[in-house]
Amino acid sequence: MDAEEFRTRGRQMVDYVADYLETIGSRRPLPDVTPGYLRELIPNTAPDKGENFNNVMADLDRVIMPGLTHWHSPQFHAYFPASNSFPALLGDILSGGLGAIGFTWASNPACTELELVMMDWLGKMLQLPSHFLYSESVTGGGIIQSSSSESALMALLCARTEVIRKLQKHNPDMSKGQVLDKLVAYTSIESHSCIERAAMIGLVTIRVLPSDDHGALRGATLEKAVKEDKAKGNIPFYLGACIGTTTRCTFDNLKELGPICTDNNMWMHIDAAYAGSACICPEFRYILDGIEHADSFALNPHKWLQVNHDCTAMWVKDKDLMEGAFHIDYYILRHVNNGVRMPDFRHWQIPFGRRFRSLKLWFVMRSFGVSGLQATIRKDVSLAKHFESLVRADSRFEIVAEVVLGLVCFRLKGDNNKNERLNQLIKEDGRIHMTPSKVKDMYFLRFAICATRTQEADVNFAWDIVQAMANKVIAMSNGITNGFTKHG
Amino acid sequence: MDAEEFRTRGRQMVDYVADYLETIGSRRPLPDVTPGYLRELIPNTAPDKGENFNNVMADLDRVIMPGLTHWHSPQFHAYFPASNSFPALLGDILSGGLGAIGFTWASNPACTELELVMMDWLGKMLQLPSHFLYSESVTGGGIIQSSSSESALMALLCARTEVIRKLQKHNPDMSKGQVLDKLVAYTSIESHSCIERAAMIGLVTIRVLPSDDHGALRGATLEKAVKEDKAKGNIPFYLGACIGTTTRCTFDNLKELGPICTDNNMWMHIDAAYAGSACICPEFRYILDGIEHADSFALNPHKWLQVNHDCTAMWVKDKDLMEGAFHIDYYILRHVNNGVRMPDFRHWQIPFGRRFRSLKLWFVMRSFGVSGLQATIRKDVSLAKHFESLVRADSRFEIVAEVVLGLVCFRLKGDNNKNERLNQLIKEDGRIHMTPSKVKDMYFLRFAICATRTQEADVNFAWDIVQAMANKVIAMSNGITNGFTKHG
Repeated sequence: MDAEEFRTRGRQMVDYVADYLETIGSRRPLPDVTPGYLRELIPNTAPDKGENFNNVMADLDRVIMPGLTHWHSPQFHAYFPASNSFPALLGDILSGGLGAIGFTWASNPACTELELVMMDWLGKMLQLPSHFLYSESVTGGGIIQSSSSESALMALLCARTEVIRKLQKHNPDMSKGQVLDKLVAYTSIESHSCIERAAMIGLVTIRVLPSDDHGALRGATLEKAVKEDKAKGNIPFYLGACIGTTTRCTFDNLKELGPICTDNNMWMHIDAAYAGSACICPEFRYILDGIEHADSFALNPHKWLQVNHDCTAMWVKDKDLMEGAFHIDYYILRHVNNGVRMPDFRHWQIPFGRRFRSLKLWFVMRSFGVSGLQATIRKDVSLAKHFESLVRADSRFEIVAEVVLGLVCFRLKGDNNKNERLNQLIKEDGRIHMTPSKVKDMYFLRFAICATRTQEADVNFAWDIVQAMANKVIAMSNGITNGFTKHG
Repeated sequence: MDAEEFRTRGRQMVDYVADYLETIGSRRPLPDVTPGYLRELIPNTAPDKGENFNNVMADLDRVIMPGLTHWHSPQFHAYFPASNSFPALLGDILSGGLGAIGFTWASNPACTELELVMMDWLGKMLQLPSHFLYSESVTGGGIIQSSSSESALMALLCARTEVIRKLQKHNPDMSKGQVLDKLVAYTSIESHSCIERAAMIGLVTIRVLPSDDHGALRGATLEKAVKEDKAKGNIPFYLGACIGTTTRCTFDNLKELGPICTDNNMWMHIDAAYAGSACICPEFRYILDGIEHADSFALNPHKWLQVNHDCTAMWVKDKDLMEGAFHIDYYILRHVNNGVRMPDFRHWQIPFGRRFRSLKLWFVMRSFGVSGLQATIRKDVSLAKHFESLVRADSRFEIVAEVVLGLVCFRLKGDNNKNERLNQLIKEDGRIHMTPSKVKDMYFLRFAICATRTQEADVNFAWDIVQAMANKVIAMSNGITNGFTKHG
């Protein structure tokens, strides 16, 4: 395929995407396929000769569409949103086309430098403490990572490196294994699995602490655990705090947790994957109160800030710790400016190479403007509030967690079985897609505002289906009860 | 920006990319900027109101282009190639547009399933042992990772998990730290830094072993090290072998190393980031001989197989070890088919979310066909051989490592200083871009065939520059010598 054909095919693909997104409401959000469906549809070896691209285009509807989960359907209410905006898509087309890999400053100066400035733009929108901003501090800065998981892991690994370094300095005979056996990380039972997984990868003990009635990890809980561990001779070193948990969008109490981390020389990482984006709106900024105590902080513009996957924004207070934790000098990568004024981002991340991801962040922030991005957040929150009001108006239901942002967690009052049946019926019906969850043995349904195309009518549509299925569940359970009564 | 505007802007961006790539030969490969150049060119906060996209487009030439390293210039001969083909770009446009995240099978069945089949297509092209293929074994399979670094790390972490599990089974009182202090990984001094870094992250000791005169890690070297470590009571558990080292494209001797790994219950991971792609040509397949002993294997289609970054192909012999190493059950992600017949790829990788990257692999393999991809490899190797013949014809130069694929490592005979000056002059001249390297205190220049646009005329052009700069170096050094003689 030469450049001329690419111009034609590129237009065709852009139109395919535009058509897909414009008509996505007509598709059921979840595909109706069973595992292994795709293997039967295509050959089991690559063709020897190149094919005409028309064949490839023709196969999209035949092979891909039947097995695609439609995350941008207005009836998709599962997990959390995944952003998908047109300016971001344009940024990715450009990033791909330039194809310049930015592992060091010299390997693509524009990539490193735009990223630093964009992370500052975003940091200012979030009113982050100035020690996180590259332009306003000597120590801090931001980077685009591929995921919250990678961010939580990098933070834990940096904290681990630092605590081992300090301990071995004072106890030169201590082996790294001996240090490791004493290290303890903490997180809440409601936080994302990525924190626990980071600890598994870091091979450190992690204590999963209980949340309070509002789903928050509280200072007293952490303090008690830290004291217990210290009394045993162990070394608390890392807290993975969560702002906007996946299960029900609850918020750890950073203001209480932060000083405990500071007092105990623990690294506080804040995972605000979903909820963090809302903090560009002044009225939601309070949920980050206490962030001034954090050593690192991450949120996903690829979730709720109109930037396509992948784009996790991570800030650190001390970028030297990031650069230094796993620094390996590599002759082929030396350049006159190594580390002089600009970071070599390869040190900050797990992968070595990196795409030019700040382009899409730049395009999005300029195309929407801060006010435009705030409007998308506010619209989603208002739709969630609308759904909440529908749930509250039906006395058979209860709300499981305070609705602060775009997620409504709810259930039929009563036992879990009833709610599992409700979920099953909604899934079988197939017109909307939600994912259930469970906290402290309480099963509930999660209704997330995901697609940007979702409107009030879609929320009403979803609620009508939930009610209809609830009617069935209740009728079934009454039927059974009546049956028992009749025959009893 | 609505879908209609996206259709227009998308065409504009596709044309911008096509124009850029068609005229890239007119740009110097390295930008002429100093660190901090970009910050002066744009505002230091995001705009409050959204801007017209024309402003953004206008800024590309003003802000980005001056600081861009042109990896796809025919005069770019640094590092190793980064692929950038039109079919791959189309795949990425589609992947972005669909915006469906494939962390579990259910979250996007098409994503998981196409990936499995594409990894089998590619595995068959490489004549991998059938135990790596999803369709031909019960235990093996392939996945697209974001980088070779992530692959080497995941392999090391799986190996670590497994060895700890086994040891603790027989020694229940042994702590993980006690096991860790005994674990030893190995790699060659010539391998990519990602292996050493994986060990640092995994917190295990790594021994960096010497290579032979041809740059290969040999069986006897590994065997000696393993014996030494066992004699000390340590536990060898991982070898990061390298096929096509970054420094000078040398090859570890897999046939010798493999059986030693097997005999000592060590995980053999093969990092063939660059060179692996060449093995789709039968005449180069021999460099993978011995791969049947490996537990995991990775290469980068985003380097030399026409697939844009990121796309690292990784195969494992035992996918249960990958799924199980850091398995965390997560209620919200349960689906009826969890792990039944299809993997949930979130377990196999560091990040949680994942883009639909197999689309670009599919598009590339179909558009080029196996024979088309083989032709791109053969063309690059033949250009490298041509450059080698030019070097060999000039008796002032020497070739530093056998030219097997697309990299030529060479130097002026004599001391390092002369070669450092040569490199400096080429850099100052700026018409071509190469990166120097150093092995065993020998400094040399690396000439890699990178861009698909590079032709024989570009190779001749580069050689003319190298010769002209070499003339200067030699004249300078004669002048200095004469000067010393005169005044001495």
